[in-house]
Amino acid sequence: MPTTTVSAYAAPSPKAPLEPTTVTRREVGPHDVLIDIKFAGICHSDIHQAREEWGEAIFPMVPGHEIAGLVGEVGSEVTKYKIGDTVGVGCFVDSCRECENCLAGEEQHCTQGEVGTYNARFYDGEPTYGGYSTAIVVDESFVLRIPEGIDLAAAAPLLCAGITLYSPLEHWEAGPGKKVAILGMGGLGHMGVKIAHAMGAEVTVLSHGMSKKADGERFGADHYYATSDPATFVALKNTFDLIINTVSVNLDLAQYISLLKRNGTFVVAGLPEHPTELPAGELLAGRRRIAGTKNGGIAQTQRMLDFCAQHGLAADIEVVPAEKINEAWGRVVEGDVRYRFVIDTATLPAA
Amino acid sequence: MPTTTVSAYAAPSPKAPLEPTTVTRREVGPHDVLIDIKFAGICHSDIHQAREEWGEAIFPMVPGHEIAGLVGEVGSEVTKYKIGDTVGVGCFVDSCRECENCLAGEEQHCTQGEVGTYNARFYDGEPTYGGYSTAIVVDESFVLRIPEGIDLAAAAPLLCAGITLYSPLEHWEAGPGKKVAILGMGGLGHMGVKIAHAMGAEVTVLSHGMSKKADGERFGADHYYATSDPATFVALKNTFDLIINTVSVNLDLAQYISLLKRNGTFVVAGLPEHPTELPAGELLAGRRRIAGTKNGGIAQTQRMLDFCAQHGLAADIEVVPAEKINEAWGRVVEGDVRYRFVIDTATLPAA
Repeated sequence: MPTTTVSAYAAPSPKAPLEPTTVTRREVGPHDVLIDIKFAGICHSDIHQAREEWGEAIFPMVPGHEIAGLVGEVGSEVTKYKIGDTVGVGCFVDSCRECENCLAGEEQHCTQGEVGTYNARFYDGEPTYGGYSTAIVVDESFVLRIPEGIDLAAAAPLLCAGITLYSPLEHWEAGPGKKVAILGMGGLGHMGVKIAHAMGAEVTVLSHGMSKKADGERFGADHYYATSDPATFVALKNTFDLIINTVSVNLDLAQYISLLKRNGTFVVAGLPEHPTELPAGELLAGRRRIAGTKNGGIAQTQRMLDFCAQHGLAADIEVVPAEKINEAWGRVVEGDVRYRFVIDTATLPAA
Repeated sequence: MPTTTVSAYAAPSPKAPLEPTTVTRREVGPHDVLIDIKFAGICHSDIHQAREEWGEAIFPMVPGHEIAGLVGEVGSEVTKYKIGDTVGVGCFVDSCRECENCLAGEEQHCTQGEVGTYNARFYDGEPTYGGYSTAIVVDESFVLRIPEGIDLAAAAPLLCAGITLYSPLEHWEAGPGKKVAILGMGGLGHMGVKIAHAMGAEVTVLSHGMSKKADGERFGADHYYATSDPATFVALKNTFDLIINTVSVNLDLAQYISLLKRNGTFVVAGLPEHPTELPAGELLAGRRRIAGTKNGGIAQTQRMLDFCAQHGLAADIEVVPAEKINEAWGRVVEGDVRYRFVIDTATLPAA
């Protein structure tokens, strides 16, 4: 079976805008699924990587790791999926499958390095190209089932924004009796509010200002505070079991750690833009902790999708055509999106 | 009952050496125990506080929060202790007893602020004076029983060094099947090796060099590595469930976090000397965490003493007379102590 040439939007170099192009996808192997991509979410990390803000990158880059579509073709040994199934792909498309973390179903922490959906290389050295494209070929073990009842466009952002919040909320057992703060209410944060609320936790949004308060309450927040108001840090001292930080701007971490209860955890869900000081004193006072988190494993991602379907959750989105991708990126950088852009890949030019 | 004047060694001001003096102890109230202090350990934090390296302090300062002695007098309502009992006092002598943390038996995290054994004030404003002294009056609720079979001089350091390591080792469940690293093998670290080994964990010492290797093995270490050797960080990547950091010099935290397994915890058991950068990337890669810890609650401290008695553990000490306190402090700063100085308070001048 030959490789397939597919339409895509790519960044040709770190400084250039994205432009239409084509890429080839590998032939569909025995364990592979070819997915006709219908929607691809725009994640801020697409921009960070394409602009080499996170280090040297691979060009041309076809970003996109929030992929939703339909199975268009299956390999001879595929058992999980059939043509026409609604499926998704998230942040990675392979992992070593042998290390302690892969064997534990936490492929996102593969010690050999999982294979990113774009701006990465398969173990054979071939570059990976992401979801800003009309089709992708992925091993069925790294494909997720999107349950019926979730709008496919609104499901796409669950594959990164959804799982990145679901994973720590599940790991640190957000639920009844737990006080959870979501710091920042953008693409990630708005999913965090919805999921934490559906898990039964008491949810507080910590946002720079109050402009999204009505949205926050609609998503399920019990409380909403502005971090620009110093009184917030007095009122909420020693309050939270869990704070999930979704903002990448640098914060005075000591202020935020002081909002944790004894044994509370502040979870860093994204790299800060600049080096940040460890607030050791505030950690000591209350056996508090700072943890990192990084999307989720395949099994957990499937649990997240099933949970969202069961609770009627998906992202709040604005669908954009391909020719608006560069403009949408500009608006993401400005924070002007409520709450996720999703590309309608039917608008990509024919390959 | 009148106040009692007792002999003590005190720092009169931040820059001055310690000198003999007297302080008064409150009358023995209904719930109080008067302890005839026999031994007082020298903790590096005594020096940090007396030299105002941790902020403004209260002078004159009688340091010492590793106190071992005999009950000399009991108040009318005291039920736990009788005259002649072997007892100890650790890092604090009171707490609010009402907050969530006190009610949970974690008085070291009292949200009102527990009352430090020295360089602090009781809730009525009176300053506290510590163990470099011949007697102290403490509410029985903040007095620990030193079990029979532990040498009283070697028991004194358990009240700070012992509990400061026991607390995180118990909290993070060091035991069979767990790989624990003790970073730094000084006063705190040597107790960490002994306790973690007695709990059944596989113990690795991470020390700057190899000069204390034989001691480490004698204390129960299974492995011993030099952090001055870059190969250590290659060999031990992704190894530990738990690393307890007992050193206050600044480290490249990212290097150490990379030695943790997925979900592993790096515990900061003391304030770093200078601001330290948060190694966010290494936290994200493996859902790792950095936590703080701070001695332990009264109930946990008693468990620690009972555990040490049961396993025949105590500190390795060098007993010094009062007139050698200033010299001993100099040696602590130089790291020239194996592994804890303990003052024989019988050598204090008469009050």
